[in-house]
Amino acid sequence: MIPEKMLEVLNYEGVISIVTQGPDGPHVANTWNSYIIIKANERLLIPAGRMNKTENNIKGDSRVLLTLGSREVEGFHSMGTGFLITGTGEFMHNGGEYDEVKKRFPWIRAALVITPASITQTL
Amino acid sequence: MIPEKMLEVLNYEGVISIVTQGPDGPHVANTWNSYIIIKANERLLIPAGRMNKTENNIKGDSRVLLTLGSREVEGFHSMGTGFLITGTGEFMHNGGEYDEVKKRFPWIRAALVITPASITQTL
Repeated sequence: MIPEKMLEVLNYEGVISIVTQGPDGPHVANTWNSYIIIKANERLLIPAGRMNKTENNIKGDSRVLLTLGSREVEGFHSMGTGFLITGTGEFMHNGGEYDEVKKRFPWIRAALVITPASITQTL
Repeated sequence: MIPEKMLEVLNYEGVISIVTQGPDGPHVANTWNSYIIIKANERLLIPAGRMNKTENNIKGDSRVLLTLGSREVEGFHSMGTGFLITGTGEFMHNGGEYDEVKKRFPWIRAALVITPASITQTL
């Protein structure tokens, strides 16, 4: 289900946006392409250094939107492509997924685990 | 009000996320760092090829969140910095701002004009 082209994008550095629904409107947090860990079960693991507002929002509405892209990978019409991932998020403060992220990023306070529902190439 | 470091980020290519509030939750559209035009009055002009959902959302709630960043510019703790822009958006289908964007990006159907309310360095 994870498109080959999305894996290609993740070979390049870039900003990932993580959008959640808060009581006062949308909230957006960021991470880097190089920080994301994709598991064989297609869950995405993201190190959370702060992301307190994202965590609070997810408690109220677990739906998450992620966008990522790279100008270095060919899109539909020209160079540059991006993906929109919809899914649900959960903050892990212990357990195997947390440990895996903690090992690579010792500064985390939690691991944000995304379970994708859809992945769409947007351009 | 536009931070020097944000202008520095825009010298590098990357994905910009444009977040709006829709009736069913947040929506996110994307553009590229190299596509944004910053005017002397600090309004940001963005070419809109499609962005139909973003335009519809803005009709109901004009608040917009933008994030942008680059791993090539130094942040608070290490290489890599990003900015969160809050503000309001408006789609222009004619007029001076539209013409300026259309000249550079002939494929646009509209210009998305952002009036920033706050610009925060996030990392």
